[in-house]
Order: sequence, then structure tokens, then C-alpha cells
Amino acid sequence: MAERVESGKAELEVQEDVVDPWNVVSKSATGIDYDKLITKFGSTKIDDELIKRMEKATGKHVHHLLRRGVFFSMRDMHEILTLYEQKQPFFLYTGRGPSSEAMHLGHLIPFIFTKWLQDTFDVPLVIQMTDDEKFLWKDMTIEEANRLAHENTKDIIALGFDVEKTFIFSDVEYIGSCPEFYMNMCRIQKLVTFSQAKAIFGFAPSDSIGKIAFPAIQAAPSFSSSFPKIFNGKVDVPCLIPCAIDQDPYFRMTRDVAPRMGCLKPALIHSTFFPALQGAQSKMSASDPTSSIFLTDTDEEIENKIKRYAYSGGGATIEEHKQKGGNCDTDVSYQYLTFFLEDDEKLATIKQEYSNGTLTTGKLKEELITVLQRLVGDHRRNREHVTDEMVKKFMTPRKLNFQY
Amino acid sequence: MAERVESGKAELEVQEDVVDPWNVVSKSATGIDYDKLITKFGSTKIDDELIKRMEKATGKHVHHLLRRGVFFSMRDMHEILTLYEQKQPFFLYTGRGPSSEAMHLGHLIPFIFTKWLQDTFDVPLVIQMTDDEKFLWKDMTIEEANRLAHENTKDIIALGFDVEKTFIFSDVEYIGSCPEFYMNMCRIQKLVTFSQAKAIFGFAPSDSIGKIAFPAIQAAPSFSSSFPKIFNGKVDVPCLIPCAIDQDPYFRMTRDVAPRMGCLKPALIHSTFFPALQGAQSKMSASDPTSSIFLTDTDEEIENKIKRYAYSGGGATIEEHKQKGGNCDTDVSYQYLTFFLEDDEKLATIKQEYSNGTLTTGKLKEELITVLQRLVGDHRRNREHVTDEMVKKFMTPRKLNFQY
Repeated sequence: MAERVESGKAELEVQEDVVDPWNVVSKSATGIDYDKLITKFGSTKIDDELIKRMEKATGKHVHHLLRRGVFFSMRDMHEILTLYEQKQPFFLYTGRGPSSEAMHLGHLIPFIFTKWLQDTFDVPLVIQMTDDEKFLWKDMTIEEANRLAHENTKDIIALGFDVEKTFIFSDVEYIGSCPEFYMNMCRIQKLVTFSQAKAIFGFAPSDSIGKIAFPAIQAAPSFSSSFPKIFNGKVDVPCLIPCAIDQDPYFRMTRDVAPRMGCLKPALIHSTFFPALQGAQSKMSASDPTSSIFLTDTDEEIENKIKRYAYSGGGATIEEHKQKGGNCDTDVSYQYLTFFLEDDEKLATIKQEYSNGTLTTGKLKEELITVLQRLVGDHRRNREHVTDEMVKKFMTPRKLNFQY
Repeated sequence: MAERVESGKAELEVQEDVVDPWNVVSKSATGIDYDKLITKFGSTKIDDELIKRMEKATGKHVHHLLRRGVFFSMRDMHEILTLYEQKQPFFLYTGRGPSSEAMHLGHLIPFIFTKWLQDTFDVPLVIQMTDDEKFLWKDMTIEEANRLAHENTKDIIALGFDVEKTFIFSDVEYIGSCPEFYMNMCRIQKLVTFSQAKAIFGFAPSDSIGKIAFPAIQAAPSFSSSFPKIFNGKVDVPCLIPCAIDQDPYFRMTRDVAPRMGCLKPALIHSTFFPALQGAQSKMSASDPTSSIFLTDTDEEIENKIKRYAYSGGGATIEEHKQKGGNCDTDVSYQYLTFFLEDDEKLATIKQEYSNGTLTTGKLKEELITVLQRLVGDHRRNREHVTDEMVKKFMTPRKLNFQY
């Protein structure tokens, strides 16, 4: 999947939020106006009705990322629930653009939620590592992009995915081993003109023909016919794609071409963006280690970064804070807790106490440091147990533990 | 390889010859002005010196298609001869766009000459069947394009290629089985912008992103790294491409990107176009069976087509013909003999007698009918012996009978 390579150009005066696979620029300190984005993209806001239906169908509480509105927008989720209620099959598809060795916390969000979806619905999952895309967009060799795909795959495996139910693939390797995938790429590429790609993705004539044709490669995994070994040649297994909303342009295009290919439109469930330490308006960049917590950070680095860089919505002085309280809407430590602190009650208490000024920024940050040190520490230990053998098994095209 | 899908728009007033992979439009009854084309494309005319050097190096007469100027233009042929003289390896690459079941005589020319090159220089040959391209350009399914690739492969095998030295591949199948090929596609696609592709190929914004990215797929076989099984991973085996000159834009692009990829530029040897029965200005079309002789035509069809449709450069009446003689430069039957009658002496006699009016158009046509009935008859019989097993063997990625 494309990762935002430029985002949050806070230095620019922007008149309007800009969201596409390569740019996320917010005009406000509270970040992107997601209601406006839903209107602009033509997706549907996730409402209580959907959440209740999901809880009824699955018999369990929805994930806190869904309860708290991190996953906030969707397309055709009701259709997916109908399939589930009727015991009809569907599959999950998500991905990652392997642009750097060290993934940061924001990169985990779609995978954490995807794992919950898979555990809840018990369906196959395909994870695309777009090493070809990273090669096309970045100043790196294709071998290096492919190496990073393998490194990042270790991080994904460390989240606990089930090898019997999950296929992780590098584009470079899988396209070169599956004619059916390449045929779908061609079918999609035939149906999208340069003008259309330009309108959707903002391509310019100075862009490489590789970039211009790439969207078809991110679209192809939406169709079960791209995975003949998993689906035993069945071409009409519906797909649900959990992803950050900046990836939606790829799948708007996919949904546009699908009926013309005689294929099913993929359903989607979209997340908001994970803010940089410096706040929702600033840029989270792999090349700026202070902008984010990385999965390779030590306990000390985590503590240091949160204390030094996490944007505070608290008062300027202790006195002011006690008097006016803190602003949870702009406070990055609080925002991060909404992503990673699972305990709803505790989070509500923190919100209340921070807002009324009884909880200081220092204490709030300590809370976050504890949560993140545990999360990253667990991840580090889990990743150490991921062997090359396991990576190879996850990345081998094969039948999964589902019958078609 | 791209085949001309529209050509010889004789109904249009053209100010200048137009030659690109999809259009060949001549403003003159004698066809394209090839000297002008060489200047425009920046290639080099094949001269006596090159032919003499080739004969000296190989110890045999050059093929009549080279002697007679059908192969008339080149890039870096002297470098290829130097390699040969130094007993250094190189390989041959040619191809075909499988757009129809029945190949016509013109389609044979590059393959007949390529076979002579392979026999003479004893080098590996790769033949690309661009089923993906035909799917992208034509109103046909990708499965049908792939089927035609297999049908056309039978015609190519029937010409007598050596299975130990020749690899024939369908793009759809080979790209889906060789990551190294796909990696080269990506490397090329990264180095060509839409503007450049537009300038070289005339793409418009209304063209599909598949068409726009396709040139990289025709470029990729120019590099030995695209065939790891043949070249044992050796990435610097030079390539010589025999093709009709309308394919040159693909390889101008290839030669432009090659140094930036750390690869060798392919050498080229270009042929003129094979004229339609109705003359060099008219369109040879698979959908118009009267425009050409097909490899599936019966003896009667061949006789009938030549008699009825082959444009005559002879006099309007027997008397006028005897008085003024025939014009070999516009006479299609004579032109066809230059392609297919191997006997130089006989051809010279025919030219002399037709030009001075002692040989009538009827007798000239009889001569051609005999030659073509034998050629097509032999081909038909040879093709009958090509089994699916043989096709499979030629199309299996494998080591050839060369050591690297």
C-alpha cells in the first residue's frame, strides 16, 4: 500500500485539507475534518446502527479502534455483515508500502484492527507488500525495497497473525509467480485511462509510466481471482479492505472498474490518521526520528520522545492547567492513548481528569509511556521469535485453511 | 511485438510518411521513403562494408533479405560483429503480437531472417509473444490473446527453430513466472515519464494506463537479466534485435534507459515493410483476407488472390506492356518475389524481362504463385507436425544449449 511520503506541510498555508495516498495536509490543529472527507470521498460514516449490527452478528464487543471512531468510515460494510450472517465467505485484504526498516506506531493501526477482524470473522487475509511501488516512488533499488518488504513482514507476523489463514506477499515476488494476478493487473490497466488516473491520483506528465500504471497493482488483490491457490479458482469471493482513508482513491478506482470486469466491488473500512508526536498538523516522517515512536525504540527513547516531543494540550503553567484544564482534542499523548489503551473506563477517567485539570501533562505522559513501553517491548520480543522460515511460510503462495 | 493495427490509410492525403508501431502510412505508391526514415529515426543504413564484414566473419553469403535491402537499417551491428569475431556471446530477441489466428506472409519475414541469423551465429534466441499488448489494444479477452499466442507459436516453430536454442514466451505466462523479468519491467517503467512515452509513441491522455506502461514490457527482453535460466544469472550478455522498422521506437526508448540501468544497449537490424497485395500504399489487414496471403490459404486461394488482387506495374494493354515494359518498383508480384524467391539469377532475369516487356504480368504472377504455393504448402505441412508438447517445450523457461 502507498504510504504517505509527504504529509502535514504545516509550513504551508492550506485552504483546505488535502488527502491522497501521498499527501495528508490538515489546515487545523485538530487534524483533518473527517466529516468533510466522507462527503468528498463519497463514503459512509460508521454509525451506532452498524456497530450494533456487528456486535449482534458476531456476539462480541467491537474493537476499541471502532468504538472510539478511529475506524470511522466505510463502503458496503452492511453487505459484508449480511454475508457473514448468511455464513457466506469473504476475505480481508490490507497492505503496506515497505519504505523503511523501522515501522512506527501508526503503521500498526491497520494491522491491529485487521487482526481483530480476522479473529472475529474467521476469514482468509491477504497482505500486499508493495515493494514495486516503493521502488518506483523512492530513491532505492528494487532489491532494497524487496528486502524491506521481508523486514516489515517480520513486524506484521509479530502481531500474531495465523499462518494457516494469512498470505503475505511481495509484489515483486508474487507477480513473478502468479499469471492470474498479472492478468488482473492487465484487465484493470485496460479500463483506466491516463486522464482518469490523473484525476484520481493527481499524476503529472512528468511522472513515470510505472507510477501511472501502479494503481492497478494495488487494485488487483481486491479480486479473489488474483489468488487461485487460496480460493481454488473461485473468482467471486467478496473482499473487505481495512485501510487508512488516504488509500481510498485506489479503491474508488477499483470499485469503478470491478463491474466492468465482471468482478465484485470490494467493501472498505477506513481509519483516521495517526498523529505525529508534534501534533495532527505536523509531519510524521521515517527520516525524522523525533516525529514518531518506532517499533525499534528502546524504553529510554520512548520515554524521552514522549516527554520532549509529544504535543501537549495542557495549560502553559500548572496554575493555568489546574484552572482551565487540558485539551484532549489536541493533546497527542491523550490521542495516542485512544489508539493503544484498551481499558475504556481508565481512558474515560483520564479524559475527565485531564480536561478538568486534576491530571497534569506529566502524569498523562507517564501513563502513555507505560502503555507504549509495554506495547513496543512485547512487539520487540515477539519479533525476535519470527524466523526467516516463518517469513518464507507466510510468503509462499499456498492453500490456506479454508475450503472453496 | 506491436503489430501495425492501422496502416496505409491510402484514402487520406498524407504530407509525410508516418511510421510508428501502430501506423504505417506512405504518401507514395513506391511506399515509405526509407532513407528519410533512417535520418528521422537516427539509425544507420546497412552498406556494402557491413555486408562484406559479415560475410568475412561468418564465411558465408548473407541472406537474400539482407542482400536485397529488405533488412536495410541497423544500430550497433559492427559492435555485434566484433563480439562474434572475438568469440564473445550475444543473443537474439524478436517477437510477435498475436492478434489473429492466421499469420500472413509479412509476419514471416522477421522470423525467416532471425532463423538465418541464429543458424549463422549460433546464439540463443528469445521470442516474445505480446499477448498482454494485444489484449490492451484490441477488443479481445486476455484468455483469447493468450490462446492466439500459442497458435502463432506453432507457426513460428514450423519455420524450423531449434528447441535447444530457442525460448518462446507469452508475456502473460512468463511475467507470471519470472520475478527477474518483472523487476526489469519496473526498472524501465521508473525511468520513462508519461511525457517521454507520449513523445515516442504518441500516447494521448485518453489512452489506458496499460498501453502507457506497455513499452517497458517490450523493452525488458533486451536485457539478459530478464532470462536468468538461459543466461545463468549473467546480466551483461549483449542483445541483437531483428525487427521491422516500425518497432524501432520501442528500442530507441530501450537504448535510452539501458545505460541508466547499468545495462547494455541492444543492437538492432531493421526490415522494410511487406506490401499489401494492393500495393505499398494500401492497408494489409487481417480482417481483409484479400489484402494478403495467409499461411492458411489453399493453393486455389493463393492463385486466385494473386491473379485478382496483386497490384500490377505492367502496361495497361499487352501492346503497351511490350512497348514500355513493367515497373518493378510498384509491381507487388515482383516485390513479393524479392522476399521469397531465393535464386538471385532467376530474380535478375525476371526483373530484366519484366522491365523490358518480354515477360507479361500473367507470367510474372504465375512465377509468384508457384513460389508461394510451395512456401505456404511446406509451411502447412510443417505446422501439422507441431504438437502441443513441442509448443510446451519451446515455452518452458529453461536452460538452453549454451554455457554461461
